[in-house]
Amino acid sequence: MVNRRIAEILRNGQPDESLIVQGWVRTKRELKEFAFIEVNDGSSLAGLQVVLNQDLPDYDKILKKINTGAAVEVAGILVPSVGKGQRIELKAKEVKVHGEADPETYPLQKKRHSFEFLRTIGHLRSRTNSFGAVFRVRNACAYAIHQFFQEKGFLWVHTPIITASDCEGAGELFRVTSLDLTNVPRTENKSVDYSKDFFARPTYLTVSGQLEAEVMAMAFSNVYTFGPTFRAENSNTSRHLAEFWMVEPEMAFCDIEGDMDLAEAFLKHVFKHVMETCPEDMEFFNQRIDNTVLATAENIINNEFERITYTQAIAALEKADVQFEYPVSWGLDLQSEHERYLCEQLFHKPVIVTHYPAQIKAFYMRLDEDEKTVAAMDILAPKIGEIIGGSQREERLDVLERRIQAQGMKLEDLWWYLDLRRYGTVPHAGFGLGFERLVQFMTGMGNIRDVIPFPRTPESAEF
Amino acid sequence: MVNRRIAEILRNGQPDESLIVQGWVRTKRELKEFAFIEVNDGSSLAGLQVVLNQDLPDYDKILKKINTGAAVEVAGILVPSVGKGQRIELKAKEVKVHGEADPETYPLQKKRHSFEFLRTIGHLRSRTNSFGAVFRVRNACAYAIHQFFQEKGFLWVHTPIITASDCEGAGELFRVTSLDLTNVPRTENKSVDYSKDFFARPTYLTVSGQLEAEVMAMAFSNVYTFGPTFRAENSNTSRHLAEFWMVEPEMAFCDIEGDMDLAEAFLKHVFKHVMETCPEDMEFFNQRIDNTVLATAENIINNEFERITYTQAIAALEKADVQFEYPVSWGLDLQSEHERYLCEQLFHKPVIVTHYPAQIKAFYMRLDEDEKTVAAMDILAPKIGEIIGGSQREERLDVLERRIQAQGMKLEDLWWYLDLRRYGTVPHAGFGLGFERLVQFMTGMGNIRDVIPFPRTPESAEF
Repeated sequence: MVNRRIAEILRNGQPDESLIVQGWVRTKRELKEFAFIEVNDGSSLAGLQVVLNQDLPDYDKILKKINTGAAVEVAGILVPSVGKGQRIELKAKEVKVHGEADPETYPLQKKRHSFEFLRTIGHLRSRTNSFGAVFRVRNACAYAIHQFFQEKGFLWVHTPIITASDCEGAGELFRVTSLDLTNVPRTENKSVDYSKDFFARPTYLTVSGQLEAEVMAMAFSNVYTFGPTFRAENSNTSRHLAEFWMVEPEMAFCDIEGDMDLAEAFLKHVFKHVMETCPEDMEFFNQRIDNTVLATAENIINNEFERITYTQAIAALEKADVQFEYPVSWGLDLQSEHERYLCEQLFHKPVIVTHYPAQIKAFYMRLDEDEKTVAAMDILAPKIGEIIGGSQREERLDVLERRIQAQGMKLEDLWWYLDLRRYGTVPHAGFGLGFERLVQFMTGMGNIRDVIPFPRTPESAEF
Repeated sequence: MVNRRIAEILRNGQPDESLIVQGWVRTKRELKEFAFIEVNDGSSLAGLQVVLNQDLPDYDKILKKINTGAAVEVAGILVPSVGKGQRIELKAKEVKVHGEADPETYPLQKKRHSFEFLRTIGHLRSRTNSFGAVFRVRNACAYAIHQFFQEKGFLWVHTPIITASDCEGAGELFRVTSLDLTNVPRTENKSVDYSKDFFARPTYLTVSGQLEAEVMAMAFSNVYTFGPTFRAENSNTSRHLAEFWMVEPEMAFCDIEGDMDLAEAFLKHVFKHVMETCPEDMEFFNQRIDNTVLATAENIINNEFERITYTQAIAALEKADVQFEYPVSWGLDLQSEHERYLCEQLFHKPVIVTHYPAQIKAFYMRLDEDEKTVAAMDILAPKIGEIIGGSQREERLDVLERRIQAQGMKLEDLWWYLDLRRYGTVPHAGFGLGFERLVQFMTGMGNIRDVIPFPRTPESAEF
């Protein structure tokens, strides 16, 4: 007899097939002469209904052991189901209980639990319907990202996690050290003696792999990163994590137009792949979590994204018949309410806003002809706001040096980054996507802590 | 006219096709009435030969700008090549030089450079043949790993990088902190006041995602991690990195036999995929780096791995007509020389050694019936020694508690890990593979610093 995964059985299983399933019991219903259990192995939202007949050897003994959470292995034969809700069910011939779960202490009983409570049992929460669906969709998103880039000939490059540069200045940094904190070594003038640290210099956790991805794009043309990044920002919100995964493609010989085309195709691909591979999970989110997620996915897949300049966006916001909390004025950054107005009220679909004022964007973005704006592009999505931020990069050495110095940074610290403009520089562009924001967007989950297996947030690093 | 990647042109390009290529000049040869340049865009080891005829507008001016390292965009028409070494070449109609590279200062001139020197210019070394090949093969390996697991229904799970537990005890840990090292806060009794740190407790960089992967396997049955891991070990060798990527599958309802079967199928798949997708790069390694890499790959793909117990291995080593440097005796760990003897001299293929003495292996490995050995399995490969280390995990709560305490660790610290055995425990197994070791093994590169884009080693965290 062969072991089969439940997702596959529910899809292809035919009456009279003999097989073994292995999984965990979600529910048990005892009737007079038999019992039903629902077994789930994590391969799908739906479990397989298993019928235990009282003529099974040790029926009573086994039934006592089978409670919610118990691990079982059932050998049996598929039969058409007479009950509602399933096409087939498994008639058990032999049941083995690998591990019990005491109903007195096992925290996941049938009743619904709050996401707050489930966060305290992060080691068990994946066994619920909601988190099962979240992590299957998360996996589908992640693999769709690799497929998208690999099929287009992009190389996955692993940029460093530990970095000596804090030059992006994007939020606060975590320090990485092997020094003994109870006895930090000092130099003669009493400052920290980093020559004693592992890397013989101050080091941090990366906030972005972009600069190193640019290095790799200058050799392989098209590359992407997909790895963890960090912010030591003390933000206890439903949208911030101290540790999160980021996707950052970088393309040589590419301008802001090509960048937008890629980003739009990328989002459409990922949504399409998830809708195709996880329809049941997506349906679940639409029913139980947020009844707009299917419409949002369709919207992303089927609509050409609107493209407007920052200057046009400001004009539209100034004309809007809406009372905004934050001021709207050329030169100020767009706030979440403004971003949502643009996609939800004005265009009813994703909007790409381009050419932001130089002074509110990073030094590496390419200065436009007018010297007032840069070739930045942000993709704003209904309900979530900014989902992708990208730009054409400044490829001109003299302009880049000027911009670095204007931001009070030192050219020496970026010598290698500047070398990319000194030797064989080309127009190039890329973007960044916060992976958990994407999963949040796709699933409708309200709190970002619920779309990553083990969230890291201020004062919390459990498991 | 369409932009095309050079790998694709070399494969499919036909005479009379008009197209644009974009890349960097590797070499230039000036003849009397025309010049040849070799353009490489990183998509393949071989570049495309481009012919510049003197009737091109601004021929002399352009030719002066085109030196090794310059970035060019060439529009032209494919023609059959009369010269040796290529089937087709591009006759240029229009050439645009995006970025020059001053031959006086650009470090990558035609001559060969040592890998030591190239490490000092890590931001440029990917533009050489060797590193181009390494990072294409690295990408192919990485994607092959995802494909292998995804096709088998495994979920890619992201286990945490920042962790509060140091309970694996595998080597030294990097500390992660947001505390000010010049002024570390103290408690009343003068110890470090971690309540002031970001996570309100001591935190470290992870050494393994295994324990968390076990959490996920207990919900989804089959999962794998693929992410960065860290060791603050002061080892300045050609085989150690402070930051490296690790692959860790974990399977519920799986014993050591299933674990070995998966690991063997996994290695075969990855080697096969790389041989199929990067034949030119693999040929290059065989010619220039290590003339055994093709034979090794064939050996892995075509041979069933030998499986012997540790006890049998010790007996074989004791009988061996070889003078080992380190002693051989039941209870002692195998040294590299022993591992290499087994696969290189005795079996001439990969060997899986199983059931090591409990006292030399980790607490989570399943204790065998005899209580002397554990269900560990290490895969030893010719030339490299241990490439995979895995085990069936201890799923019995009482045995696991005993083993944890025997190693002087606290049960409280592992409360959530123990819960996995309390609720629905199942036989399960998994293994770990150091990704850079695999790439080293595959390419024959002598130093592990040369198979990761930006190596992190003692006193070195450049770029």
